[in-house]
Amino acid sequence: MAYLNDHYLKLKAGYLFPEIGRRVKAFGDANPEAAKRLIRCGIGDVTEPLPAACIAAMHKAVDEMAVRETFHGYGPEQGYEWLRAAIAQNDFRDRGCQVADDEVFVSDGAKCDTGNILDILGPKNKIAVSDPVYPVYVDTNVMAGHTGEANEAGAYAKLVYLPCRPSNGFIPIPPKRHVDVIYLCSPNNPTGAAATREQLEAWVKYALEHKAVILFDAAYEAYISDRANTNVSSNAEGLERLFQLAQRRGHLTYSDINDSFPESISPEELDKVIAKLREKGVEIIDDAQVDCSQSRLPHSIYEIPGARECAIEFRSCSKNGGFTGVRCAYTIIPKSLNAQTKTGELKPLHPLWLRRMTTKFNGVSYIVQRGAEALYSPEGKAQVKALIEHYLGNARILREGAKQAGLKVFGGVNAPYIWVQTPKGVTSWQAFDKILSEANVVITPGSGFGSKGEGYFRISAFNSRVNAEEVARRLQELKW
Amino acid sequence: MAYLNDHYLKLKAGYLFPEIGRRVKAFGDANPEAAKRLIRCGIGDVTEPLPAACIAAMHKAVDEMAVRETFHGYGPEQGYEWLRAAIAQNDFRDRGCQVADDEVFVSDGAKCDTGNILDILGPKNKIAVSDPVYPVYVDTNVMAGHTGEANEAGAYAKLVYLPCRPSNGFIPIPPKRHVDVIYLCSPNNPTGAAATREQLEAWVKYALEHKAVILFDAAYEAYISDRANTNVSSNAEGLERLFQLAQRRGHLTYSDINDSFPESISPEELDKVIAKLREKGVEIIDDAQVDCSQSRLPHSIYEIPGARECAIEFRSCSKNGGFTGVRCAYTIIPKSLNAQTKTGELKPLHPLWLRRMTTKFNGVSYIVQRGAEALYSPEGKAQVKALIEHYLGNARILREGAKQAGLKVFGGVNAPYIWVQTPKGVTSWQAFDKILSEANVVITPGSGFGSKGEGYFRISAFNSRVNAEEVARRLQELKW
Repeated sequence: MAYLNDHYLKLKAGYLFPEIGRRVKAFGDANPEAAKRLIRCGIGDVTEPLPAACIAAMHKAVDEMAVRETFHGYGPEQGYEWLRAAIAQNDFRDRGCQVADDEVFVSDGAKCDTGNILDILGPKNKIAVSDPVYPVYVDTNVMAGHTGEANEAGAYAKLVYLPCRPSNGFIPIPPKRHVDVIYLCSPNNPTGAAATREQLEAWVKYALEHKAVILFDAAYEAYISDRANTNVSSNAEGLERLFQLAQRRGHLTYSDINDSFPESISPEELDKVIAKLREKGVEIIDDAQVDCSQSRLPHSIYEIPGARECAIEFRSCSKNGGFTGVRCAYTIIPKSLNAQTKTGELKPLHPLWLRRMTTKFNGVSYIVQRGAEALYSPEGKAQVKALIEHYLGNARILREGAKQAGLKVFGGVNAPYIWVQTPKGVTSWQAFDKILSEANVVITPGSGFGSKGEGYFRISAFNSRVNAEEVARRLQELKW
Repeated sequence: MAYLNDHYLKLKAGYLFPEIGRRVKAFGDANPEAAKRLIRCGIGDVTEPLPAACIAAMHKAVDEMAVRETFHGYGPEQGYEWLRAAIAQNDFRDRGCQVADDEVFVSDGAKCDTGNILDILGPKNKIAVSDPVYPVYVDTNVMAGHTGEANEAGAYAKLVYLPCRPSNGFIPIPPKRHVDVIYLCSPNNPTGAAATREQLEAWVKYALEHKAVILFDAAYEAYISDRANTNVSSNAEGLERLFQLAQRRGHLTYSDINDSFPESISPEELDKVIAKLREKGVEIIDDAQVDCSQSRLPHSIYEIPGARECAIEFRSCSKNGGFTGVRCAYTIIPKSLNAQTKTGELKPLHPLWLRRMTTKFNGVSYIVQRGAEALYSPEGKAQVKALIEHYLGNARILREGAKQAGLKVFGGVNAPYIWVQTPKGVTSWQAFDKILSEANVVITPGSGFGSKGEGYFRISAFNSRVNAEEVARRLQELKW
């Protein structure tokens, strides 16, 4: 008799989002009028249309498929050369990271890749995840048989959970004990925290010492926004500090501006400041143009020396180009990354992933790959920037709204997620129910991401501006 | 230190198609003039443009993505309801097969699904494959650790190989021994053989007795063409037999026509015969319109009673709609299909696959799903039919060409592949080299599909008509 994979039976039935769906439906059924003003800030799905450059490129690609001479059948499973080259050049080499075109593997999703990567890793690895954590990392390890059973809090035996708290900026610290594989997600889903250079350096150091592999999920990389991260207590004060810094340094980077400003400033205001500084002959350098070793918040793990020997990086077009329904992502496997066989022999992982992709995958739709390529055109880049600014603008509004409501907020600066601490004594699900029933807003309870997520909730900034403003207003009306 | 998956190291490095590529390149480098007239009948990739209905649907979908109100983000991981319903209705329920909409899982490829299905099956299953075999079935089992090492002939220990020979019509016969999982591919890649009702009934009987699971790959289902399958020794003789049958029966189905005709007839000629019979009041019934229990060559395993308790079926839009570069496929997991846990408890596989899809996959591109839906529109159906007729027309020409060249041919009637026996004493690779160097045609050596493929080669009918005719002509010029 055929056997099933018993490990699937260990999975918790009540997955987070179905439970949210159930509660939202129950509320809507009982309160049809309130349901009409429901605003969803739960799931991290984009809402804005695709960049015009993608639309044009995909129309062109569809037309090519209609003519024998330009028709495309099977493409290379690992992605077309022109897309791999555009990715390697724009996302990595232009930032000073050494990534070769053929180290880029184009796929249909970062979720798929972070799950499928376990195919090429052995069953004996000790696996570490953060807590709270994106549930896919955990569930795919359960399915692969890398864990024991879950306890009452939902934590699986054999997995190492690394707590994320305000004290570590919600970025896990390398453990004292040995692990073989570590999942890091930065900017983080769900907490919205972005790892600093120092934090990533500590992880690379750990991984090299332990010959461990870091699975670095940078799906939200585009939200690392040194400008949005700019902090000034007031515009006047910030301007004053900036001038002082300019006098000392002769030139400035956006990171300098971040470091010197304690409170937020709008991009428009910052532009004015910069224009004035430039008039005075101060050189302002966009971090993206300078040696990546200068930036405080690395956009890629490969900005850290040694990462090519210990890290795989996952990227996605979902949250920058708005491709959640279009489907395109990519994974970097450096050829210098090794793992050991059962007998302790070192072998590169690159050929294993190539073999997996060519055997178990048939490439991303030609039409979609042409759409993804267009994200790297000058128009595409400008349109992506506008999308990111839209969502980060929402995040700023939601952050401010939650703060004005007296809540303690994290994230939402370099990520489209705001991580909000619930008032004392209120659980994540209690907060969920209160915000649903009183503000008619759907958020995500933090406890759904792990036991250390208890006492928090996540607000997604993926929405229209008018909805973000309305949610901010309603949050302030709530009485806790 | 991180461990890799050692099973990958068992995989044979020299995969079939890279070796073909190497030899073709070496030939082209040495013979640049001959290389210019090269015609590729190797890989099974479509060559004709997409159906106009798909082009229109995808343009419309791209436009929807450009507007906030009609933008689509994440879709259901298992496919949009409208596509699942169209598939279940048109491909199954209209043929009398009981398949519910939510038993259809839309994916980005049948190759992906036939590999990924192993995720939900346990490691202790005894696995059977045919020989020759589509290499993905074998390689994905090697990767999953279900095999031992390969022997010199390329056969892996622990796998059960079921020989396919002329004597069994290249469809494997159920073994005397017990196996838990059986891969069946019909119409077959590489041999072009289509399993008859009786052959599939024998397999379903075996699977029910052994509580085994049949993995039924029907990616080439659209090529089951009772009309192309029609056999008449000569048109005159065929017509005479048909009239006799008509007198006895009062009405005829296309299957009757098949059964009564020993040799091939062109669709054009058959149309004339049918027109004459209709003039005389004989009713001709298209098998697709009648109860599927009447058809000699089932289009789905679910035409066989009991299959819902023992079979998973894989389908694809690649070879009917020409979606090899667009990427859409689907898999049927009946809710009545069970497998056992380690402790012998029976559980349905449907929820496991649903969990796999929702956790490790993010759905097929919205644009692509709209394109696939258009295959089921009246225009789409007519356009797919024309595509299939084009490729089957090529197959007929290539079959005849190889026969005229004195070669023994199989397949190519209900499949786009012609399976040709090499002349005595000529190996598959010798035939490959001769056809490449003398006819400047690329075919696929049968031995690349398994040891029982030695002494055969595969000709793909995926080509333009002019190329198919030219290949047929060149084959006849060859002196063996």
